Amino acid sequence: MAADIAEQPEVYARLLEPAHATAIAEVAAVIAERRPRHVVFTARGTSDHAALYAAYLAEIRLGLPAGLASPSAVTVYGARPDLSHALVVGVSQSGGSPDLAEVLRVARESGALTLAVTNNPSSPLAEVAELSVDVAAGHERAVAATKTYTAELLALLMLVEAVRAGGAVPDELAELPDLAARVLENDALTGIAARYRFAARMVTTGRGYAYATAREAALKLMETSYLPALAFSGADLLHGPLAMTDPDVPVLAVVGSGPGGAAMRDVLARLRERRADVLTIGATGEIAVPDVDERLAPLLDILPLQRLALALALARGEDPDAPRGLNKVTATL
Amino acid sequence: MAADIAEQPEVYARLLEPAHATAIAEVAAVIAERRPRHVVFTARGTSDHAALYAAYLAEIRLGLPAGLASPSAVTVYGARPDLSHALVVGVSQSGGSPDLAEVLRVARESGALTLAVTNNPSSPLAEVAELSVDVAAGHERAVAATKTYTAELLALLMLVEAVRAGGAVPDELAELPDLAARVLENDALTGIAARYRFAARMVTTGRGYAYATAREAALKLMETSYLPALAFSGADLLHGPLAMTDPDVPVLAVVGSGPGGAAMRDVLARLRERRADVLTIGATGEIAVPDVDERLAPLLDILPLQRLALALALARGEDPDAPRGLNKVTATL
Repeated sequence: MAADIAEQPEVYARLLEPAHATAIAEVAAVIAERRPRHVVFTARGTSDHAALYAAYLAEIRLGLPAGLASPSAVTVYGARPDLSHALVVGVSQSGGSPDLAEVLRVARESGALTLAVTNNPSSPLAEVAELSVDVAAGHERAVAATKTYTAELLALLMLVEAVRAGGAVPDELAELPDLAARVLENDALTGIAARYRFAARMVTTGRGYAYATAREAALKLMETSYLPALAFSGADLLHGPLAMTDPDVPVLAVVGSGPGGAAMRDVLARLRERRADVLTIGATGEIAVPDVDERLAPLLDILPLQRLALALALARGEDPDAPRGLNKVTATL
Repeated sequence: MAADIAEQPEVYARLLEPAHATAIAEVAAVIAERRPRHVVFTARGTSDHAALYAAYLAEIRLGLPAGLASPSAVTVYGARPDLSHALVVGVSQSGGSPDLAEVLRVARESGALTLAVTNNPSSPLAEVAELSVDVAAGHERAVAATKTYTAELLALLMLVEAVRAGGAVPDELAELPDLAARVLENDALTGIAARYRFAARMVTTGRGYAYATAREAALKLMETSYLPALAFSGADLLHGPLAMTDPDVPVLAVVGSGPGGAAMRDVLARLRERRADVLTIGATGEIAVPDVDERLAPLLDILPLQRLALALALARGEDPDAPRGLNKVTATL
């Protein structure tokens, strides 16, 4: 897991190279030409968080209504929604889960433009979709996904920006590999893991783009440290679960320097009123991450949180490379 | 909270009476005539779970792609998605949260058909929307929503079935008040609350329609007993969080007698392999609920779980009528 985490700057650099960037730009050109009216994402687990990020991108950057679909409506109940004006995107590291392939097959039959975003371009998901993006993260050794998650984020960001720009990946992303390397040089969160050694639970929170980061951080903590970690959008936290926070519940809050970070101020104030133990991560956080546009921040903010999950698992005597009860490819129907 | 819970059969009966059923059928007729291409739901907290249920209904019963939208894309980042072919539905007990009203205002401006589903027909949300459904649950005394949640479920079910039937609410729903009363006569789960007195966390799970029930049960447990309760679709549980389950983590699994219940069998088997402490609720569960179509089951399955949340809060010495840190109307931007 440590090796996978350390590779992420290199994964970013590879994906931004012309070979991959051109392939993504070609897919973007087809999407731009076909002009879908809305976007439906379908994914599970970690990839669902990459899809959540991409849904924000589609709405904000492309003005396309976007939502996450539950595969089970199609695969369990036999729903056959008319997707003839939709772009349907399946996101999966392995591309091997039968339910996602089935959703894309049904969508394609109903006339949707279908796209697979996977780390395995010869997977069933990629084969069933009309378009395919290879996130090119290389073989992931650990069961807990890290570099395949961020590779999905970057591939989806490149795709959306290329659709917006009319077919080319913009230069502003070129700094991401160096910025990611700089984040990983900072050891701050590894030391902080000791603080959570005996935590019985955790809460993660963020708003907007950062909500995906909060969700993914919670999943990593659950997968590697077996800690019940609850992720909430900052707004949803105020609608109920705030009652659950008290000084014994550590909160990890992802706060950027843009509109999402600003919208978290009220949430942080309410948490402090409840004397919650809050640690902030991000451009304006105690665990500082380089200040980039919030749209790019999920590619950096998750890095210290992945390291926290790893360090905390080790501190708790767990083996993050062999989480109990998990397999790399999860086949759900 | 006990009084609100006990009122639910009466709320169902009132909503099914001609006065309310006709109003819902009229809204359904407008939707059927305008033929939206897809449905976007927007909601927070408990109402988000009613929206999740309705998204399954829209896909399965109407063949309409449906998804849940994050209000913050619009309200925090200023996204202006083109919703001219969408039905945009805001679901909110109070109808008073500014972010949902703003999403509906922006959607209506872009040409969407907009609908407010609330317990307050003169609320800002109802005023900004073109169409409005009153869930008619009456005044809810407790902060933790119970009867307004199930009233939202029933109103959304009546609406979808009326759109499907071309404008009338079908008779098959008429049994729901009696079935709900029968569920509430059964005290089984109140006794079971003692078993969870010292639980440090809980997991809830279900698939398909029952996933909404699992999510709502988890929120009630968090709001009233301050217990970290993690809800997963059965499929997502296998994609990571399964690692977190062990004999010390009680699992509440909602299992119906239809396709969603069948799809849970594999999940239950995997949980048993991990020696998880599983209690099943639903038509085929240990806590038995009358066997109805899975489409109707969320209106019954949640009732014993609301009572469990109440009984557990009392067993833990908490006051479920005054949860710490919460207000009835949550204003998020």
